[in-house]
Formats: sequence, C-alpha cells, structure tokens
Amino acid sequence: MLVKRILWGWIACGLLMVCGGLATAQTIDPLPSWNDCEAKRSIIAFTEQVVKSGSSSFVPPAERIAVFDNDGTLWAEQPMYFQLLFAIDRVKTLAPNHPEWRDKEPFASLLKGDMQGALAGGEHALLEIMVTTHAGMTTAEFESIVKDWISTARHPTTKRLYTDMVYQPMLELLDYLRANEFKTYIVSGGGIEFMRTWSEQVYGIPPEQVIGSSIKVKFELRDKVPVLIRQPEIDFFDDKEGKPVAIHQQIGRRPIAAFGNSDGDLQMLQWTTSGQGVRFALYVQHTDAEREWAYDRNSWIGRLDKGLDEAKAKGWTVVDMKKDWNTIFSKQ
Amino acid sequence: MLVKRILWGWIACGLLMVCGGLATAQTIDPLPSWNDCEAKRSIIAFTEQVVKSGSSSFVPPAERIAVFDNDGTLWAEQPMYFQLLFAIDRVKTLAPNHPEWRDKEPFASLLKGDMQGALAGGEHALLEIMVTTHAGMTTAEFESIVKDWISTARHPTTKRLYTDMVYQPMLELLDYLRANEFKTYIVSGGGIEFMRTWSEQVYGIPPEQVIGSSIKVKFELRDKVPVLIRQPEIDFFDDKEGKPVAIHQQIGRRPIAAFGNSDGDLQMLQWTTSGQGVRFALYVQHTDAEREWAYDRNSWIGRLDKGLDEAKAKGWTVVDMKKDWNTIFSKQ
Repeated sequence: MLVKRILWGWIACGLLMVCGGLATAQTIDPLPSWNDCEAKRSIIAFTEQVVKSGSSSFVPPAERIAVFDNDGTLWAEQPMYFQLLFAIDRVKTLAPNHPEWRDKEPFASLLKGDMQGALAGGEHALLEIMVTTHAGMTTAEFESIVKDWISTARHPTTKRLYTDMVYQPMLELLDYLRANEFKTYIVSGGGIEFMRTWSEQVYGIPPEQVIGSSIKVKFELRDKVPVLIRQPEIDFFDDKEGKPVAIHQQIGRRPIAAFGNSDGDLQMLQWTTSGQGVRFALYVQHTDAEREWAYDRNSWIGRLDKGLDEAKAKGWTVVDMKKDWNTIFSKQ
Repeated sequence: MLVKRILWGWIACGLLMVCGGLATAQTIDPLPSWNDCEAKRSIIAFTEQVVKSGSSSFVPPAERIAVFDNDGTLWAEQPMYFQLLFAIDRVKTLAPNHPEWRDKEPFASLLKGDMQGALAGGEHALLEIMVTTHAGMTTAEFESIVKDWISTARHPTTKRLYTDMVYQPMLELLDYLRANEFKTYIVSGGGIEFMRTWSEQVYGIPPEQVIGSSIKVKFELRDKVPVLIRQPEIDFFDDKEGKPVAIHQQIGRRPIAAFGNSDGDLQMLQWTTSGQGVRFALYVQHTDAEREWAYDRNSWIGRLDKGLDEAKAKGWTVVDMKKDWNTIFSKQ
C-alpha cells in the first residue's frame, strides 16, 4: 500500500511537472515591458531562429555574441552623459584644494554652474575636465571614487539614483538573450573603468564583458607593491569606427546582434550585420518627451541621423520608445 | 511484484551511482602527466582551497581567473618564437613578388637562411619583418593565412606540427582548472590574432579569453562592405609591465592564479599574487635538454633570471620540467 502510494505520488508529480512546464512556456512573457509591437516580435523571431538546432539559421552558443551601447541604449543620457555629470561633481568635490580654479577655465565657469561657458573651450576644455577628474590615482582608488558616487549621486532633474535610470525593457532583453545562451557585452563610448564598477550589479554584465573608452594606465611598484596608475592621456576612444575595432580587439569574434541609439553606433551595427548568416540590429529612438526625452537628428547628445536613414533602408528594427515600451525605467 | 522489482531496481541504481561517484573521485588523477611532486601538490592544494565553499579561502566562480603565458608556458618556443618562424616562412612565400628584397636587409639575409645577419639590425629589423608579414590585409585575410600555416607548417628540428608541441601537462592543468569553474586566459607577448585562430581548438580557450600584443586595425567601407585593415603600426606590446596593464584593460579583474616561464611574465605574477586572499603563481623552468630544451638565466628567448630569484624568495611554485613532467608534448 505504501509502495503504491509512493508510486502514485511520483507519477502525479511527474505529470504536474510536465503540465506545469507547458503552462509556463505558454503564459510567461519574457519581455513584459515591451508592447506587442513589431520591435518585440522581431527580437523574438531572431532569437528563435538562431537557437533552433538543426535549422540552417542555427548559431552555436559560443558564437551568440550580442553587443549593447550604454548611454541612451541601456540607461538615459540627458541632459548630458552621466559620466560628464560625475566629472562635474568631482570638480566640485576637489575645488577646495584648487583655489587656482577660480580664475581658470573650464573650471571657473563650471564651478559657477555655467556649463555652456565651461564647454566653450570645445574638445580641449572637455578633455581637461575628464583628465583632471579621471587620472592621477591608482585604478583601485578610482574604482572606489566611482562606487561612492554611483551609490549616492542623484540625477539633476529626476532626482533619482543614476542606476535607477536604466531601461526596464532593455534589462528584460538582456535576460532574455542570456536565457538563450547569448553572451551580452557593453560596447560604449563611456569609460571602461567607470562602467565596470557597477555593470555586473545593474546589468548582470561582468567586467570582462564591458568594452569602452580608456585612458592609459601604467604599472609601478610602490614600496614593492604593484599598482596601476591612471595617466592623463587618452588610450582609446570607443565610438564610431572605434567600436568595430574594439570589438575585434577585445572579443575577437563578430557579434550576431547589436543594439544602439545613435550615429556613434552605426559602424558597430554595420559590422555586425555584414557577417554571414542571420544577423540583428536595433536602434532605440527617443520619442517620449513625457516619460523620458525626445531627441534624434538634431541633438548634441546621442544624435541619431545617418543611422536612422540606414536603419530604414536596411530594414533594421527601430524602437519607438513611446509606443513600444509600456515601462521606461527600472525603478518607477 | 513488478512494482517491487522496479523499486529495487531504482534503489540499486542509486547505490551504484553513489559508490561509482566515490570510486571515481578516489581513482581518477586529473593531472596524470605530472609526477607526484611538490608542484603538482601545490596546484591541487590551491584549487581545493578556493573551491571549498564556506571556508575563508573560498573564491566565487566569477572571480576564479587564471592567466597563462603562451610561448614556453603552454607550447615550446625554441629555437625561436613560433610566430617568428611563421613570419620567416611568410617572407619566403612573398619573396617572388618582391625582387627588391634580394638586396635589402633584413630580407636578403633571411632569404639566404642567415638569421643572425637578418637580425643584426636589431629591433628595427625584427619590426620590419613583422610588419611586412602581419599588416596590409584585412583581419579575415590574415586569419586565413595563419590557419593555412598552422595546419601545415613543421617545426625546423622536431618536424612536428607546431600545435603538436603544446605541453600535455599544461593541457591537463587547463582542463583541471576549468573543471573547477576557473576561467582560463592566455596573456602572451605573441600576437593576439595569431593565437586566436587556433587557441580554441588547441587549448579550449575561446578568442575572447586570448590577450596578446597587437597592431593597429582600421575600419573601412570597401564597396559599402565594412572591413578591418591591419596597419603597419604596433598598438600594444603585451610583455613585462604590459601584462598587468592588458589584464586590467581586457579582464578588469585581478587574476587569482598566474602561470609563466620567463622574466617577461614577472610583473603578471607580481600583480596576481599581490591581491587579497589566496593566490597562486607558477613558473615552468626548462630543464629537459633531452625531451625539450634546457635554458633559463642566459637564454635570448624566454630568459628566466630575475623571475627565478623572486619565485624562490616568495615561495612561488617552480616546475622542474625534467623531474616533474612524465610527458612533455601533447602528441608523442
């Protein structure tokens, strides 16, 4: 009797598991923050094509590389790149030790809150702000500075933590691709070390899968202890033509899917889609002035102009943020 | 009766599996090409320490990064780096299209088989050979050239394929670490693209886990098709102080184990072992003139001098190839 009961228990349990499994597959939407739109359908269709073993479109897991721009694609980038806001906060923190900045541009304007004046010096002014705030310390010291900032600083208009301004639909997309054995990478114009301090926690993307712009670092022994010192010199600028170059140097395989939001991502999308076999390219277009920001062809940040034309000509997926996403940020 | 039989079958099967598992753990040696020596015991002790959950020495899998030099550590490097032998073969292949090389150094000497003469021009001569043979084509073309060479070219004295001159004990070590959820990386002075064409097949190390020296590449559209063109300019030299820098840029985490064979690896071993927690560093010392080569403090290739002193002072593991390895090459 006992034996029979155990057996029935096992059989019932097995049946439950099978039915439960079927029910799950039918009802759980992997991308709930995406409205039932063409963009969502194109993502799912592409993914199902490459994972279908035995089909001509099948791609082995090792080659399922997906690359994501960061600013404007995974998190917001207005009113200016968040890393620039970090640099500005940093200038303010360091100012008491630099009385000479009161009369020296770009610092003088910046400390008065006049960003236009601070950036009037163009690229040179920007570079000076970045180098002053990003170099001259060990890599460990820089990591600790960024960690402090990212866990406390607030966005100037939304007053949220910056890491709460990542896009919920993109988090779901990252998870969905990883559940389908994709390896997800960031390929951003932003600083590689800036992003690596929080990318694993926020996006589930480990440091070795973060590619970005970098400054030179130098190995030194300090009291016999090895340290890496951040130098005031640009090493690599990971934007436009730099993105395929960095992908090649750091991954060594061509991605099969690429996600961006600006003309700075165009070469990455071109490089990705010109490989053999099934490929996927997606642009996020910022169309939601109410819940986020609306900008594209004429923006000084994240301009999407040539890329939009090429996306239309080539049939790449374009996300209309306002229509296609029912949720924008990861924390409401 | 039937029910009883099934139940007994299951119980017996379960017992067999448990006992089978125990027997396996006790009898299968993960490093059979390593004699029962201090080196082998130190590797196993370190690995068991970091995987033991709940212990103070436990390291989460994501942080189990192990870095390996290539030339002289994973495969042989005598009478000169194999990539230099590739370059020489390539000069010979290209010579019919370059009649001017008959009177131009370093090509003239090289084509006569006079290596000493060819390298008399020092670093400049070497650079000219490398740039002539490694640049001026697309990355896809270079990959195809290397693949052809590596699958057919033979070592000048052993007459073996170069990929048959990888060290069997190190292949076992790579497998053993990966079985313990380590991520294994190559960090080599050799060319990153040269190694990536065969590292996955030979070592089980995918392209994205290969770090090496590089030349610059440039993104171009050729008839609207994007290509990456290899430029005649060094981008990064991944040796000595360069190794910790490259590890930092490409992995973004400090390894917990490092393996090398020369002074060129010293900074990588210093960087690895100066992190917090349990760390491991190992030098392969070439002591077997009969089965391989014997060289260390005075060799022009793979010199191990300062590194050997520091290994002794710091208690790093040193492999005596002759005593510690019962098999040298992967194919006998």
